[in-house]
Amino acid sequence: MSSATEVVAARGRAAAHAAPSLAGADDATVNAVLLAMATGLGERERELVEANSADVEAATSGGMPASMVDRLRMGTDRLSAAADQLRGLAAVPFPAVTRELGDLPGGLRLAERRRPVGVIGANYEARPVVTADIASQLVKSRNAGVLRTGAAALRSSRALLGHVICPALERCGLDPSAIQLIDVAHHDAALALVEQPGLIPLVILRGSGPTTRDLARRAAQHGVRTLAHADGGGVLYIDGAADAPAALELIEAGLDRLGVCNRLNLLLVAEAVWPSLQGRVLALFQRLGVAGSLPPHEHPVGFEWALDEDNEATVTVLPVRGPVEAARVANTETSGLAATIVTSDPDAARRFLDAYEGTTALWNASTRLVDGFKMLGVPETGINVDRLPGPRGPVTFRDLYLRQFVVTPR
Amino acid sequence: MSSATEVVAARGRAAAHAAPSLAGADDATVNAVLLAMATGLGERERELVEANSADVEAATSGGMPASMVDRLRMGTDRLSAAADQLRGLAAVPFPAVTRELGDLPGGLRLAERRRPVGVIGANYEARPVVTADIASQLVKSRNAGVLRTGAAALRSSRALLGHVICPALERCGLDPSAIQLIDVAHHDAALALVEQPGLIPLVILRGSGPTTRDLARRAAQHGVRTLAHADGGGVLYIDGAADAPAALELIEAGLDRLGVCNRLNLLLVAEAVWPSLQGRVLALFQRLGVAGSLPPHEHPVGFEWALDEDNEATVTVLPVRGPVEAARVANTETSGLAATIVTSDPDAARRFLDAYEGTTALWNASTRLVDGFKMLGVPETGINVDRLPGPRGPVTFRDLYLRQFVVTPR
Repeated sequence: MSSATEVVAARGRAAAHAAPSLAGADDATVNAVLLAMATGLGERERELVEANSADVEAATSGGMPASMVDRLRMGTDRLSAAADQLRGLAAVPFPAVTRELGDLPGGLRLAERRRPVGVIGANYEARPVVTADIASQLVKSRNAGVLRTGAAALRSSRALLGHVICPALERCGLDPSAIQLIDVAHHDAALALVEQPGLIPLVILRGSGPTTRDLARRAAQHGVRTLAHADGGGVLYIDGAADAPAALELIEAGLDRLGVCNRLNLLLVAEAVWPSLQGRVLALFQRLGVAGSLPPHEHPVGFEWALDEDNEATVTVLPVRGPVEAARVANTETSGLAATIVTSDPDAARRFLDAYEGTTALWNASTRLVDGFKMLGVPETGINVDRLPGPRGPVTFRDLYLRQFVVTPR
Repeated sequence: MSSATEVVAARGRAAAHAAPSLAGADDATVNAVLLAMATGLGERERELVEANSADVEAATSGGMPASMVDRLRMGTDRLSAAADQLRGLAAVPFPAVTRELGDLPGGLRLAERRRPVGVIGANYEARPVVTADIASQLVKSRNAGVLRTGAAALRSSRALLGHVICPALERCGLDPSAIQLIDVAHHDAALALVEQPGLIPLVILRGSGPTTRDLARRAAQHGVRTLAHADGGGVLYIDGAADAPAALELIEAGLDRLGVCNRLNLLLVAEAVWPSLQGRVLALFQRLGVAGSLPPHEHPVGFEWALDEDNEATVTVLPVRGPVEAARVANTETSGLAATIVTSDPDAARRFLDAYEGTTALWNASTRLVDGFKMLGVPETGINVDRLPGPRGPVTFRDLYLRQFVVTPR
């Protein structure tokens, strides 16, 4: 057994031991933990910022690119935003635990109810506020957790656990060990996190790209389920019956950020209108500093530009016959994250929405909406693009449960 | 590529090609297919019984044990029962496709809706009526399917496809290729069924034991999700506050069949009452022809007797301190299929039901209830004992769907 495996196993056992304390907490206590975390972020700001400064200094002197150092920063503004988010989550109502399904013969009654999973793992980038974000969602869902952050954020995350998260659990009478941090900097720890189905049966993988793809594959081989989207990329289809200004607006809305999974990546345009639209679309791209990759393409049609640092500011363009072919291209050539149709023809919209199989189908709306906060009003734990029964699309704390049937006397 | 792999891939492609025809069918058409299948079972009885006789003769002359030959038989009675089941399924209402989630900014509206998975695989024992059963549930859920039955039932199953299932689809205007049968007798076909995530992302594995366990593991390694329960075994806990006659009745109810996964397998008894109950429990076992395996056990406490042909008529008995320890033993030593508490103390019941994590928790009711028909009023596609979000416990046609978010203008 590698030392990373031993560390993760020890964290998993500690979390499993503490899990019943959290699973049995009442709603008021769970929300009190979140509010105590919010308060703690303010009260312990000095220690948190200090730990973060050490992370930032080490990263800078180690030659980390400026954009990544920025993500690593955890200053007053971000701490204050994180505290607001925690208070917001505390205010979100809990889904009903029990749903009555009716009577059974013999004087019995059947219900379906939600139980916490137990221990959930999470692997995420070197952005320390995510530690508070994920911990809060696990607490809200009453699941214990084993967290693993990118090595560069380890000091900041350790400070969040030690000064804020664990004390908040303890102050509310819960076992502070329910949230565990893997304080091993090596990437082996990420591998070890997805190899222990008995202790950590479910792991949330944040972020896209080859690391997530590899971890998801490795998890499957070990019988560990993941919620992940190695690949993303929004699709926008401009129908023959689209209002041109609306289409251009949605293109622009889909490109307000380039490094995110739900940005506009593939632009499909009805062949009939492409000649008349081409000039305006390319002019818009130029204004936005984006290159259009027109056919013939020297890359797969669904290639995700957000994962290509050198060519992030690119959008693939492909003329298609109509809404059903657009949906087919989105189904077969992309990750299945999200696709939108721009049209003023309700019938074309219906055909597109019915044919598209991805996690979110949109009509006259940007794929940038595909986000827990914007779409569901709660932070997302992660995004899952599996084409399988279960949590799919933006996953929130409400999805992190086991179904259980309960039979009792009436 | 092995020839089994090629055959399964060809069946998977054919099913995938036909899937949209079924996915787009309206409720009336789907139910009409089920009714046409029911009619077909009667109209083509001669051909079906003839094909089945050939299977039975081959099995008998090949030395198949009588109990397995009995499962293989498909006579008038079983065909008629299967037809009744199809008519029953046709009468079951469909779950709502769309659930409105509310308004979004910008004049938009959000809904969550159910989509078919596409193609679902199923591997099951040599019991030919199961072919009609699973095909009907896939049709009801609007999923195409690739079915693989035990080799001994291949002629019967081929006749069901050719004379009943495919003609019923065709008569109702749907693509008859939506339900495919793997007509390769070799076990390699089962392996090939769980190795093609692109074509068959989800496979239902019926039946328990090492074959299911191996297929589930192999599926996971290939990124194919399964709904399965390699291990079962009902747990009955007799609490200190149990009514003794009620406890004995539930023991007997749990042993009306011995070869099934939800039978009584592990009997836990509160230490305080075991001395006074022991005589009556063992007398009951004797009357039922069942052996009690008392401590010290020479096998794991959760060992499933239904999978041990030579010792099927055995129940493991273990005294425990109380309801929470009983739940802990059921959680850690058994598959997590189902456990029941017998008690007249509501507080003990609550503590047991809260602590037990399996798919179904019962109070004063037999684990034999854990069955799609008996518990949910619809046939079960299979049973799943994963401790993960998603379909869990008895899985029915209502569970075989993908979640999709849909954003449209208001």
